[in-house]
Amino acid sequence: MAEYRILPLPGYAPTIGRLVAMLNDVRQTTLKAVEGLTCEQLDHLHDEQSNSIGALLAHMAAAEREYQILTFEERQPTAAENDAWSAPLKLGDKGRREIRGHELQFYLDELRRIREATLAALAEHDDVWLEAPLRIAPNLNAHWAWFHIAEDEINHRGQIRWLRARLR
Amino acid sequence: MAEYRILPLPGYAPTIGRLVAMLNDVRQTTLKAVEGLTCEQLDHLHDEQSNSIGALLAHMAAAEREYQILTFEERQPTAAENDAWSAPLKLGDKGRREIRGHELQFYLDELRRIREATLAALAEHDDVWLEAPLRIAPNLNAHWAWFHIAEDEINHRGQIRWLRARLR
Repeated sequence: MAEYRILPLPGYAPTIGRLVAMLNDVRQTTLKAVEGLTCEQLDHLHDEQSNSIGALLAHMAAAEREYQILTFEERQPTAAENDAWSAPLKLGDKGRREIRGHELQFYLDELRRIREATLAALAEHDDVWLEAPLRIAPNLNAHWAWFHIAEDEINHRGQIRWLRARLR
Repeated sequence: MAEYRILPLPGYAPTIGRLVAMLNDVRQTTLKAVEGLTCEQLDHLHDEQSNSIGALLAHMAAAEREYQILTFEERQPTAAENDAWSAPLKLGDKGRREIRGHELQFYLDELRRIREATLAALAEHDDVWLEAPLRIAPNLNAHWAWFHIAEDEINHRGQIRWLRARLR
């Protein structure tokens, strides 16, 4: 029987481990939501305003990379970084134009590559760091920031499920 | 400046407090996503398969009530309870038929009433309870169950935002 538990995880400080358990749980549901989609299905635009499912996956990876910079590198993204990620971060017209033609594995590889870096960095931090105000954004802490990354992924996974149910 | 922090909260055990901070954060974004919607907009069906925004709000409240029974009362819902909530829990045709004609305040009152009971019960429990296997469902713990309620709300809030952007 599958186990669904949020608990401290070996290799992480206790509260960070619980957060990692949440991030892992969410990622499993995302992977399930996109399983087996073809390139054509990943590129499909439901209507003129819609983001493709592929673009939503690219957005999840880009948002996570942005929050690595904010929380682990304690800086704002450079202009070059912002420019490189503006399509997946902002989505909309630019995302519709630029993010297409990829197989599912392309998006999954990027999600996995960025997640591995997140988990490696979280393993190096402690729970005091997790809940202290962020140096470059003292109105938030890293616990909120990483919860927000889970939240953003779930939000778009909800949209992916909706869009997938309407693919022909 | 608004503060975005996940931290222990006064009145709750430390890990439960962090979870409550997440539930509160998510609820604020839900309230913002539906602010100002009229009865007609809450009832609107985007297509034949769609749930209305009102039905998605009713679903959030019903799912939370179901998890109160599972985690605090440590029992399965009765047949009468399942029957009473089958429209908001299962959505689909029955939801489209039965959940309509309400103003926004109706849904918000139900969400608040149920959330108040959740928070009152969480304040009575400790962190050992939170992470122990649930007696009636030992493959999950209450920490996962309540994270899942946040997750379900975010998932449907993502759909609400998508639907709202397409209301005429």
